[in-house]
Amino acid sequence: MKVLILGAAGMIGRKLLESIARDGTLGGKRVDEAVLSDVVLPAVPAGLPFACSASQDDLPAPGVVERLIGGRPDVIIHLAAIVSGEAEADFDKGYRINLEGTQRLFDAIRLAHGASRPGEGYFPRVIFSSSIAVFGAPFPDRIGDEFFTTPLTSYGTQKAIGELLLADYSRRGFFDGIGIRLPTIAIRPGKPNKAASGFFSGILREPLNGQEAVLPVSDQVRHWFASPRSAVGFLHHAAAIDTSRLGARRNLNMPGLSATVAEEIEALRRAAGDKAVALIRRESDPVIEKIVAGWARDFDTTRALSLGFTADRDMDAIVEAYIDEELGGKRPQF
Amino acid sequence: MKVLILGAAGMIGRKLLESIARDGTLGGKRVDEAVLSDVVLPAVPAGLPFACSASQDDLPAPGVVERLIGGRPDVIIHLAAIVSGEAEADFDKGYRINLEGTQRLFDAIRLAHGASRPGEGYFPRVIFSSSIAVFGAPFPDRIGDEFFTTPLTSYGTQKAIGELLLADYSRRGFFDGIGIRLPTIAIRPGKPNKAASGFFSGILREPLNGQEAVLPVSDQVRHWFASPRSAVGFLHHAAAIDTSRLGARRNLNMPGLSATVAEEIEALRRAAGDKAVALIRRESDPVIEKIVAGWARDFDTTRALSLGFTADRDMDAIVEAYIDEELGGKRPQF
Repeated sequence: MKVLILGAAGMIGRKLLESIARDGTLGGKRVDEAVLSDVVLPAVPAGLPFACSASQDDLPAPGVVERLIGGRPDVIIHLAAIVSGEAEADFDKGYRINLEGTQRLFDAIRLAHGASRPGEGYFPRVIFSSSIAVFGAPFPDRIGDEFFTTPLTSYGTQKAIGELLLADYSRRGFFDGIGIRLPTIAIRPGKPNKAASGFFSGILREPLNGQEAVLPVSDQVRHWFASPRSAVGFLHHAAAIDTSRLGARRNLNMPGLSATVAEEIEALRRAAGDKAVALIRRESDPVIEKIVAGWARDFDTTRALSLGFTADRDMDAIVEAYIDEELGGKRPQF
Repeated sequence: MKVLILGAAGMIGRKLLESIARDGTLGGKRVDEAVLSDVVLPAVPAGLPFACSASQDDLPAPGVVERLIGGRPDVIIHLAAIVSGEAEADFDKGYRINLEGTQRLFDAIRLAHGASRPGEGYFPRVIFSSSIAVFGAPFPDRIGDEFFTTPLTSYGTQKAIGELLLADYSRRGFFDGIGIRLPTIAIRPGKPNKAASGFFSGILREPLNGQEAVLPVSDQVRHWFASPRSAVGFLHHAAAIDTSRLGARRNLNMPGLSATVAEEIEALRRAAGDKAVALIRRESDPVIEKIVAGWARDFDTTRALSLGFTADRDMDAIVEAYIDEELGGKRPQF
C-alpha cells in the first residue's frame, strides 16, 4: 500500500510516520511506500521498513497536487494547514492553503479518478484532519453529533468547508473520504508557543521538564483533549474503517477527554509530585480567558465511539503518553 | 439607495423587482437605482420609479463581479444559482457558478471594502439566498435552528459553503451578510417543470388554470412551503433587519408552512371547488417518492420568527397569493 502524508513535517505527521514505521503498517495494512509533503521539507528517518520520499511543496501551486497523487497513493492523509492564529492574522494565506489547497487536492483526485463505471478508476481513501474549531460558541454543555458548524475563526470556516467538499466528493464516488475533528492535542511536545491554547500543554510539559509554566486561566476551565498518541490512533483507524458505516455523514467528532485545568494539575501531581506542581505560576490573562471561554468544553461522541475510535482513558494516560514518547519513559526527579 | 440583484431574471428576482417598484422601497428604504444581472438578460419593466439597468453575465468570468459592484450598491441580493437538478447533472457547472461565482462576488466586495479602520470603507448589506437543501436526511421530525448541515446534493453543498463564507466575511467586517434558507416555493407560476418537487406546485397551479395535474406521491407526504410573496417578504426584511441581532450566526432557516399534500388539496377545494380537485390524477412514481422521502418536512424556526420574519398563515394564503398575483385576483370558474 502507498501512503501520501500532506503536512508530514508537523507534529502529528511525524508521529504518524514513526508509528507506521514501528511495524510497517497503517490501519493494519502493510505499507510499501510513504510519500511525505510539507511546506518545509519533511525529514525522512533512517531505517524505515518501506520506501519513503519527501518534498517541500506549496500545496495550491500549479501542478503540485497532481505530482503528489501521480503515484496513485492508496491512502491520502491530509494534515496540511495554516494554523488558527496565522489563518486569522493572514486572511489570504489561510484561504489559499486551507481552502484552495484542499480544493485543488480533491479536484486532482476527482480528475484522476477518471472512471466511467462505478467500482473502476482511481479511488483512494482520503483522511481529512478537521478540528473542533468548526464549532462556535454558544454551545450546549456537551456538543452532540448533530450540532451545527458556526465557526468563529477563518481557520474553522476553512475546515468546515473542507468537510463539506469531502462529503460531496465522497457521495459522488470520486474518492472514499473521512473527516476527523481532532480535540486539542495535549501534551504537545517541544517548546512553548504563543497559541492561546498553549498553556493546556505547557502547564504539564514545562514542569515535567523541570521548568516553570504560566497558567493564565482559572483551575475550573474545562476543555477537550486528546494525546498525540490518540490522534495517531484516530488516523490509523480512519485508514482501516469500513466507510460504508458512515453513510453520507463523512465527518466525525473524535472522542476526547473532557477535563479541567485542576484535573490536569492533579494528574501532574500523581506523575511527578508536588514540586512539579509548584512550578505552575498563576498569572491570569483576561485576553486568553475570553478566548478560551468561547471554546468547546465537552462532546458526546456516541457516533465515533460506536465506529471504534477510542479516546484517552483519563488525564493520567495523557501524561503517561508524554513521558513514554518524549522523556524516554523516565519520570522526572525533583 | 442602490440595489444589485443577481439572478434577477428568475422568478423570485422578478417578483422582488415588482415589489420594490410598487412603492419604490426595499425594506422600507427608498431605492434610487436597481442594477439587474443574470445569465439571461433580465427584462427592465417600463415605468419604474427609479433608475434601472440590466446585464447578461457569466458571474465567475473575469471582471464581472468587479463591474457589478463598481457602482457600490448598498444592498446586494444574491439569488443567482444553478438549480439543484442541474448542479447534480453537471458537476463542473454547479461548482463554477454556485461556489466559484459566490466566492468571487464575496472577494470582490472584500477588496472593494478597502478600509483600514472599522466603520470606514465600502460595507454593503449582502443577502444570500440559501436553501433547505443544506440539510440531508435522516432528520428529526422538526429541524431546529442548530441542526447540522449534511447536504445530499452538490447544490446543497455549494449553498452550505456559501453560508460559511458569508458568515466569515461578515465576522471579518468585509460586508454585512445575512443568509436565508428558503423553503420550497409554492405555488411557482409558469409551466410545469421536471423538478422532482414540481408536483407540489403543479397539483394546485394546473387545476387553478383548468388543467390536469399529476400527483406522483401519497396524500400523506408532508413538506415545507413558502409562497413567492413570502419569499419576497423575507428579502425585504433581510434588507432592513438590524444584523447586530444575528451575532456571528448569520444564516437562518426561514419560517414556512409545514403541510401535507392532502392539506394542499383541501385548500384547492376551498378556493376552486370539487371540479378543480378532480383534475388531479394520482399516478405514483417510486423514483419521486424516494427522492421526496429524503426531504425535510418541518422546521422549528424560533430564531427567524423572533427576528421578525413571517411565514404564510396557511395553505389558503398560499393559494390566495397565486390567485392574486397570477390570475389577477380572479378565482377560476368551472
